[in-house]
Amino acid sequence: MSFNLRINTNRLISRIEKLGEIGSIDGGGVCRLALSDEDRKGRDLVIEWMKKLGLKITIDQIGNVIAIKEGKENGNPVMTGSHIDTVATGGIYDGNLGVLAGLEVIETLNDAEIVTKKPIGVGFFTNEEGSRFAPDMMGSGVHQGSLDLNSMLDVTDADGKKVGDELEKIGYAGKTQTNIFRADSFVELHIEQGPILEQEKFEIGAVEGVQGISWNEYKIIGTANHAGTTPMRLRNDAGYVASVISVEVRRLVNEMGDNQIGTVGVTKLNPGLINVIAKEALITIDLRNTDEEKLKKAELEIKSKIEKTCIREGVSFESRTLARFEPVSFDKNMVEMVSNTASKLGYRVKSLPSGAGHDAQMFAPNCPTAMIFVPSHNGISHNVKEFTEKKHIQAGANVLLQMMLQKSE
Amino acid sequence: MSFNLRINTNRLISRIEKLGEIGSIDGGGVCRLALSDEDRKGRDLVIEWMKKLGLKITIDQIGNVIAIKEGKENGNPVMTGSHIDTVATGGIYDGNLGVLAGLEVIETLNDAEIVTKKPIGVGFFTNEEGSRFAPDMMGSGVHQGSLDLNSMLDVTDADGKKVGDELEKIGYAGKTQTNIFRADSFVELHIEQGPILEQEKFEIGAVEGVQGISWNEYKIIGTANHAGTTPMRLRNDAGYVASVISVEVRRLVNEMGDNQIGTVGVTKLNPGLINVIAKEALITIDLRNTDEEKLKKAELEIKSKIEKTCIREGVSFESRTLARFEPVSFDKNMVEMVSNTASKLGYRVKSLPSGAGHDAQMFAPNCPTAMIFVPSHNGISHNVKEFTEKKHIQAGANVLLQMMLQKSE
Repeated sequence: MSFNLRINTNRLISRIEKLGEIGSIDGGGVCRLALSDEDRKGRDLVIEWMKKLGLKITIDQIGNVIAIKEGKENGNPVMTGSHIDTVATGGIYDGNLGVLAGLEVIETLNDAEIVTKKPIGVGFFTNEEGSRFAPDMMGSGVHQGSLDLNSMLDVTDADGKKVGDELEKIGYAGKTQTNIFRADSFVELHIEQGPILEQEKFEIGAVEGVQGISWNEYKIIGTANHAGTTPMRLRNDAGYVASVISVEVRRLVNEMGDNQIGTVGVTKLNPGLINVIAKEALITIDLRNTDEEKLKKAELEIKSKIEKTCIREGVSFESRTLARFEPVSFDKNMVEMVSNTASKLGYRVKSLPSGAGHDAQMFAPNCPTAMIFVPSHNGISHNVKEFTEKKHIQAGANVLLQMMLQKSE
Repeated sequence: MSFNLRINTNRLISRIEKLGEIGSIDGGGVCRLALSDEDRKGRDLVIEWMKKLGLKITIDQIGNVIAIKEGKENGNPVMTGSHIDTVATGGIYDGNLGVLAGLEVIETLNDAEIVTKKPIGVGFFTNEEGSRFAPDMMGSGVHQGSLDLNSMLDVTDADGKKVGDELEKIGYAGKTQTNIFRADSFVELHIEQGPILEQEKFEIGAVEGVQGISWNEYKIIGTANHAGTTPMRLRNDAGYVASVISVEVRRLVNEMGDNQIGTVGVTKLNPGLINVIAKEALITIDLRNTDEEKLKKAELEIKSKIEKTCIREGVSFESRTLARFEPVSFDKNMVEMVSNTASKLGYRVKSLPSGAGHDAQMFAPNCPTAMIFVPSHNGISHNVKEFTEKKHIQAGANVLLQMMLQKSE
């Protein structure tokens, strides 16, 4: 009976640690920004493992890598996967766990000489984090047709480097066409990246959906001037406006309460000198909510505050949207199947929404999709201190194994 | 009669423009940060001019360059001078006018074959701006003994490069001992860098003193975390604290009114990514007041706000003082002499304090010192749009000439 099949936890953890050595940074973390040299080395290693498992590998035009294990029948594969790019100060589990647990599921089936009825596959998708290139979930978005390939290839990073050129440079500008791949279903294992499962002592989260994401960048344009001689009333201080907006983001999300969150992660002043009033300020605003109407309300209120503050300070602004995803609901049957499978395996399971965006949400419009969460210690993620216990990795990967077995029967 | 002697305005402006070509940037401005390659090129050019005027040139251990025209008698020279380093987005007048007007005074005397009784001299002082290395007025401070040579040689820029090493690199680690030079008197010509003279239609400012300057840097230390999954109540957002402080600086100086001004010119977030809560924020606070007691009050109130905000957000901070100068009063007789000389030359003159720090203030404790201001168009400075009209340059340089003639008689 396949229900008694279990993954090899040590083998999985050994792969997570091995991949975590590439781009490793002080404190046990990792920096593998999308399409960097470190990303290339990480990709090469995972592909080496995929080849050893006898999988059929394709690389598409946005650099997504998909590996398929054939089934007894042809047809759309039951898919899992995630990403191996990281933020600049990331941990070794975010994304990587989902990809490597997919490999572990396949190796477990190979070892048991099980061939499923439907093909099964594991993929890793380009630039899920969006730290270097916006928007995030770029690879899976293009893969599933909600983002346009050519527009994404033209996206530039802070140094003006293009996605398309960087893909060429690291040798991952593949030939396989995007936006034609159809999956039977998609299930992604991921760390929670929040504190809830651990605090409430659950081992598995059955993810009901993903909150909506709004990323906007504002460039405030003021006037550079001498910090010692310019009377306060004559200033057009772009840096001051940036700080007012940043404070307003916090005030508004506190006022809205519930599920509204907001972050100003980027503030850059130009020229950025102690004795010069800033002529330009660049800030980013990350807003998220599970409720689309509330998210829209937050966007509008902040925009209105920016407009008013700019007028008062005598500065202008330009804005651009870096990412905008409406809240996503996963397939009810799939979510229930995650819950039931986890319970049958003896794990305490909680249904909850995802705070972060994930590749799975790009599959959700096109096939039955769900996600499995495992606890993040202290809820810390996007940080070198990110950590998930061995027993939780084991639980999550076994739920993934059983989900893929059921879906591919 | 020397009172009928006048400087050659075109020759002076031609030198200002020539020096402004070194490190020129878009929009007519200049970037010659202290001890950069551009600074070296600027220094070389001014020294070439000094040599052509037959002056005796010395370079001291902090890189100050002093050029002396001998007098009929020995003794301490009547000095003028300023600086030729600039901020990253500076204009071509700030500092440079004072140095080149000093050369023009000497060339005018040479042309008229006038040898003054006392020697006269012109100098340019290292790192007046403090944009690259803090504190500002470093060279004149060491020259006049209020700053310690060895401590200043060890000061590092944002990339960790030391003043001492950079002096060596550009060939300006001179041999002449600092802190022994005594001037008979010091008078510095400078652009106002503020809007008052122009707005009130004065041609000359007789500077009564310099407001006190307080520069502090704060490093806020929070926790990096995922912007999408970390509940607001669990955040330790260093970037948020930085913005609260920046808003507080503005609120406090508005509340204090009068002569209190304050600027946050630097705000840097680490890692500075759209979807990561900042683990660190670096900000600088520039506070100035003509009243030492009020300046102390502003410093204390801001420090208290920082402490409270850090506790509330669950972050810590480190601070360091980058510069601290008490308000300076110039010699009453010298200031009156500037007023009288300008009036006798037919210029409308206003007595006013200086908003910016200047090399002259470092001489003030050791010899009779004053400054001559000329209008800055629209009060703009530390900006490529900085501009002073030809007629004002002419007026300022002629007042300087007559001041130096009177003092060296």
